[in-house]
Amino acid sequence: MLRVALFGAGRIGQVHAASVAADPRADLAYICDPATEAATTLTDRFGGVPTTDIDAVMADESVDAVIIGSPTSTHVDLLTRAVRAGKAALCEKPIDLDLARVDACWAEIKDIPHTVMIGFNRRFDVSFRAIRDRVAAGEVGRLEQLAITSRDPAPPPDGYVTASGGLFRDMTIHDFDMARYFLGDIVSVHATGANLITESGDIDSAIVVLRSAGGALAQITNSRRCAFGYDQRLEAFGATGMLSAGNQLPTMVRYYGPERTDAADPYVGFFLERYTPAYRAELDHFLRAVEDGRAPSPSFADGRAALALAEAADESMRTGAVVTLGCAGHGQAQRTSQTRAPSPS
Amino acid sequence: MLRVALFGAGRIGQVHAASVAADPRADLAYICDPATEAATTLTDRFGGVPTTDIDAVMADESVDAVIIGSPTSTHVDLLTRAVRAGKAALCEKPIDLDLARVDACWAEIKDIPHTVMIGFNRRFDVSFRAIRDRVAAGEVGRLEQLAITSRDPAPPPDGYVTASGGLFRDMTIHDFDMARYFLGDIVSVHATGANLITESGDIDSAIVVLRSAGGALAQITNSRRCAFGYDQRLEAFGATGMLSAGNQLPTMVRYYGPERTDAADPYVGFFLERYTPAYRAELDHFLRAVEDGRAPSPSFADGRAALALAEAADESMRTGAVVTLGCAGHGQAQRTSQTRAPSPS
Amino acid sequence: MLRVALFGAGRIGQVHAASVAADPRADLAYICDPATEAATTLTDRFGGVPTTDIDAVMADESVDAVIIGSPTSTHVDLLTRAVRAGKAALCEKPIDLDLARVDACWAEIKDIPHTVMIGFNRRFDVSFRAIRDRVAAGEVGRLEQLAITSRDPAPPPDGYVTASGGLFRDMTIHDFDMARYFLGDIVSVHATGANLITESGDIDSAIVVLRSAGGALAQITNSRRCAFGYDQRLEAFGATGMLSAGNQLPTMVRYYGPERTDAADPYVGFFLERYTPAYRAELDHFLRAVEDGRAPSPSFADGRAALALAEAADESMRTGAVVTLGCAGHGQAQRTSQTRAPSPS
Amino acid sequence: MLRVALFGAGRIGQVHAASVAADPRADLAYICDPATEAATTLTDRFGGVPTTDIDAVMADESVDAVIIGSPTSTHVDLLTRAVRAGKAALCEKPIDLDLARVDACWAEIKDIPHTVMIGFNRRFDVSFRAIRDRVAAGEVGRLEQLAITSRDPAPPPDGYVTASGGLFRDMTIHDFDMARYFLGDIVSVHATGANLITESGDIDSAIVVLRSAGGALAQITNSRRCAFGYDQRLEAFGATGMLSAGNQLPTMVRYYGPERTDAADPYVGFFLERYTPAYRAELDHFLRAVEDGRAPSPSFADGRAALALAEAADESMRTGAVVTLGCAGHGQAQRTSQTRAPSPS
Repeated sequence: MLRVALFGAGRIGQVHAASVAADPRADLAYICDPATEAATTLTDRFGGVPTTDIDAVMADESVDAVIIGSPTSTHVDLLTRAVRAGKAALCEKPIDLDLARVDACWAEIKDIPHTVMIGFNRRFDVSFRAIRDRVAAGEVGRLEQLAITSRDPAPPPDGYVTASGGLFRDMTIHDFDMARYFLGDIVSVHATGANLITESGDIDSAIVVLRSAGGALAQITNSRRCAFGYDQRLEAFGATGMLSAGNQLPTMVRYYGPERTDAADPYVGFFLERYTPAYRAELDHFLRAVEDGRAPSPSFADGRAALALAEAADESMRTGAVVTLGCAGHGQAQRTSQTRAPSPS
Repeated sequence: MLRVALFGAGRIGQVHAASVAADPRADLAYICDPATEAATTLTDRFGGVPTTDIDAVMADESVDAVIIGSPTSTHVDLLTRAVRAGKAALCEKPIDLDLARVDACWAEIKDIPHTVMIGFNRRFDVSFRAIRDRVAAGEVGRLEQLAITSRDPAPPPDGYVTASGGLFRDMTIHDFDMARYFLGDIVSVHATGANLITESGDIDSAIVVLRSAGGALAQITNSRRCAFGYDQRLEAFGATGMLSAGNQLPTMVRYYGPERTDAADPYVGFFLERYTPAYRAELDHFLRAVEDGRAPSPSFADGRAALALAEAADESMRTGAVVTLGCAGHGQAQRTSQTRAPSPS
Repeated sequence: MLRVALFGAGRIGQVHAASVAADPRADLAYICDPATEAATTLTDRFGGVPTTDIDAVMADESVDAVIIGSPTSTHVDLLTRAVRAGKAALCEKPIDLDLARVDACWAEIKDIPHTVMIGFNRRFDVSFRAIRDRVAAGEVGRLEQLAITSRDPAPPPDGYVTASGGLFRDMTIHDFDMARYFLGDIVSVHATGANLITESGDIDSAIVVLRSAGGALAQITNSRRCAFGYDQRLEAFGATGMLSAGNQLPTMVRYYGPERTDAADPYVGFFLERYTPAYRAELDHFLRAVEDGRAPSPSFADGRAALALAEAADESMRTGAVVTLGCAGHGQAQRTSQTRAPSPS
Repeated sequence: MLRVALFGAGRIGQVHAASVAADPRADLAYICDPATEAATTLTDRFGGVPTTDIDAVMADESVDAVIIGSPTSTHVDLLTRAVRAGKAALCEKPIDLDLARVDACWAEIKDIPHTVMIGFNRRFDVSFRAIRDRVAAGEVGRLEQLAITSRDPAPPPDGYVTASGGLFRDMTIHDFDMARYFLGDIVSVHATGANLITESGDIDSAIVVLRSAGGALAQITNSRRCAFGYDQRLEAFGATGMLSAGNQLPTMVRYYGPERTDAADPYVGFFLERYTPAYRAELDHFLRAVEDGRAPSPSFADGRAALALAEAADESMRTGAVVTLGCAGHGQAQRTSQTRAPSPS
């Protein structure tokens, strides 16, 4: 049985606590959060010891792995300490808002054998993953155009946006990772944004266009608010066909009446509901990597690459120009220096 | 150019007049109706001479074919006279409400070479026909279960129901023909009806179960009123798969909002709108049969067989028991005595 | 924490064992099956003590409830003993294949305060339940026609059919319960069956038509084999609209290519996969009833009524005639004699 | 009866000839094409006199209107001559490949009272038009994001691409017009293209991002080849909901089998088949404008604006930068100088 410590008892911490509790191979050892009450609420329900003592968690040799679901600003520190303590780490996205800090983190950990995975949950969504696998199996021929639609049901509270690093680092980062999941290295980025919804002054609507090293084009459409709920769709257009994934519905019920027909249910919930099975599959992949001593995926390099795309999108927004990315950069180096074989997924 | 006389300037007459006018191979010679104004309205728009003189129409040797869209009670007389006058005839369903009169009509015309077609328009619907052709081509293996849903948008006016011969002779007769179109000879009928909608006392909701000579089962669901419009669907379930046809929509538009998603348009119209292309294809088939001297389909025998099923359904309703039909009856004899080769469709 | 004993370590036993293990309010006390190995496999995975000793289970006062998932022939005996032992019971369908034995069982238990629930899992399917609730809330007006399609992916092994009491008692019984769930008391039954698929000689394809006390009509279509998988659909047609539930799909993926478009995944699995969440919700309802001392639903009377419909369908098949059922029969009496208030669901 | 002369007996000329023949208000006077045989084939079928003499057509005072479906290089000349001859003109897109020539044309005709319409057929598609009308009626609140997918089934023959002015002027021009139809004036353009399909060296895959004067963003996805057929879709995302239009299907048939379910038919045909009803509605709008003396829409200014966007997209492709367009330019001036009231559509 793997013993897992969880950092962060907030919304995402709750998801991970439930996933660990539901997984037969893992037990919660600690839930660590300065908000003792929140941690206790979770340990009461899912097991483990509530604590505020990071040092004690890191020093506990019985702890095999940590899940980092605390605020973004704490990720680099906790990740570095976990690797030094010889613990496997599943870290929520983004690694940090600042690419320089991410690179500094990498410099610290790259020579220590480690098992580090970044929490891009959508790679584990059953529909997106199926499309990716079918594309990889050649079902639509060479992939030429990828379209990702990603809209949140409602904008985050005031203050969140600035703290989160803005739309591209906070929200689009998932879509950047999806684009890389399907297309590999991205060589150029162009971003167009608009502030249509909130009073924040930050962009809340965006269209980003990417070009991959292999020549394919990708397009990401984002909005901070979607009247019909969490809108998460994808189309993979290839030389011989297309695969698409529409939104999931809570039931299979359809209504027919005088004013409309074939009407489906409203979408319910947000990422916690939509991606519950994906979070479970993500944890399962992480635990298997820990057990088998294999490198999990998405890797630190994947987390770094998505952030680099967010930074490029910000620059494109400022200048209006396409931003070109070096192809054989940090990611390659990192993969070279990894001490364990990369996972196929 | 074939010269066509149309009997009946009512709702269905208007459809046929438009179809003839749109067909490059045919011209309207006459529109014959005691209601002169209605006939004139149609001839003004679609051509031909308005008339009330049936004898003159039948005597005009330049008339190649007649379309009988007048009230049901006039069908047998007009059909018999047309055959005697050597004119091809496309007769609306039902041939008559009384099987004995239908058989008497057949006795009159069976020894005269003739081209007679009954207007079961749904055989010419592009979706139903495609399913039938694909079933015939073996795409779903042996056909085992056929489900037909047929609901009208609104009940007919008071008085219509009795005059029309009741639900089975008036409305279900189309579905009986569809069942025969897919399954061939029917050997038994069980009908269950209810009077849920109208004050007429006649049944307005029904479920009919058929067994075919080949062993397959068919099920027909009818209602005289459907809040969401004209509901015309079909499922053909076979040993290796299923083909279904849903309702047609006026546009491809879907709406997504807080209370519903993927909501299609309301259905519009009734049989005139839904089956406009089918009526055109039906006329095209008839004109080709006339030109080529081939027997059109559905034939007189098909019209007779659908009426026999309606009569059996009425009997089953009264007794609660399954009604068995003779397999090698009138239909066989009729087909034998036909002077032209049957069409494959 | 409720302590639950499970009878039967077969396919359905495994489902219930997993449900109990996943429910935070219940623990498995025993898994009782003559096949010790099967029981042990389950207790190893889900907890509890494997046993073959029914008496010991019934005598263990720490056991609050039993789940009866053993062969049908054992249901009545185990149910009676559980009630006598003061234990709540969730019994798989059917209660028995013989209505007389069911009535004898009722005579035994009716005067003992009891909590007995019958395992009609489909009442707990999220889509069917949503339709039923929306119908009950008046969303489609008065319910006039109910269409249930229920097809198994593949016929059961030789020998199963006879032992199972035939199609209506084994398979259609779920659909009879669905019809009652939507329409309440059924007053007449007509059944048409055919042996199209198997060599068993028993019918494997059927269409059943029901009439409810309220006048609505229901229609059930069954097949023992469905090339495209487990086919479980429902349409509720009312005076002002319709609600339907199509089949669930494993992913939201659609394929577009030269030969087909918008093609969904094949269906996967059978009732165990399709109704996993329903089995969990069923158990949850049962446990809540036990905790709150309320009568669960579906009740013993519901189990008896579905069996009575199966028997009527068999008789209709034999005679070809509609079979009429008494309306104010056993069900009423039973409900009267129940010692706890019926649940609203 | 309006007398219409058609220039061009090619593929698009054939469509217009059929539309005129089918319209009860118009007759074909001439079909003018240097390829006499092609013109004669059409006049034999649809009426009118075949000719190669442009001067004679322009001089014939009985001709009320001309339809210009000849090669793009002839449009400006024919349009100018038609306006000078006092004839209404429906001119296919684009007006010309060169914006300077378009402006010179406008200088020639702007002071002559005229009825000039540009053939952007998609404005008359029943689904796109319905969405536009529903958006205009406020059904989705403020329009924030527009997504247009437009893919041709197969690349044009060698030589066509260069002659056609490239992807943006030839193919995307329809999508530029759609964007303007929904969003009005466009203020900036960014285009990304790739040559993935053909050997032509010209781009055949593109993603274009537009910003409207009102702040909304639009995104166009193009491909010269689509394995599953002509792919024409649109999504209009607003503050309170979304409207989308998927592709039209030839039938409502769906297939269910072991390897796929709910599979629709392959798409058939190309723009001629997909937009046949739109071409008819376009002609109807034009003829009504001629009859009523009202300015048709899309206007010359609309044709000019779409071309300006194509030119901006080409520039963006070359530079990688966003190209900004003047808002109150030619279009405004033109509309001011128009001598007839603008149509509401």
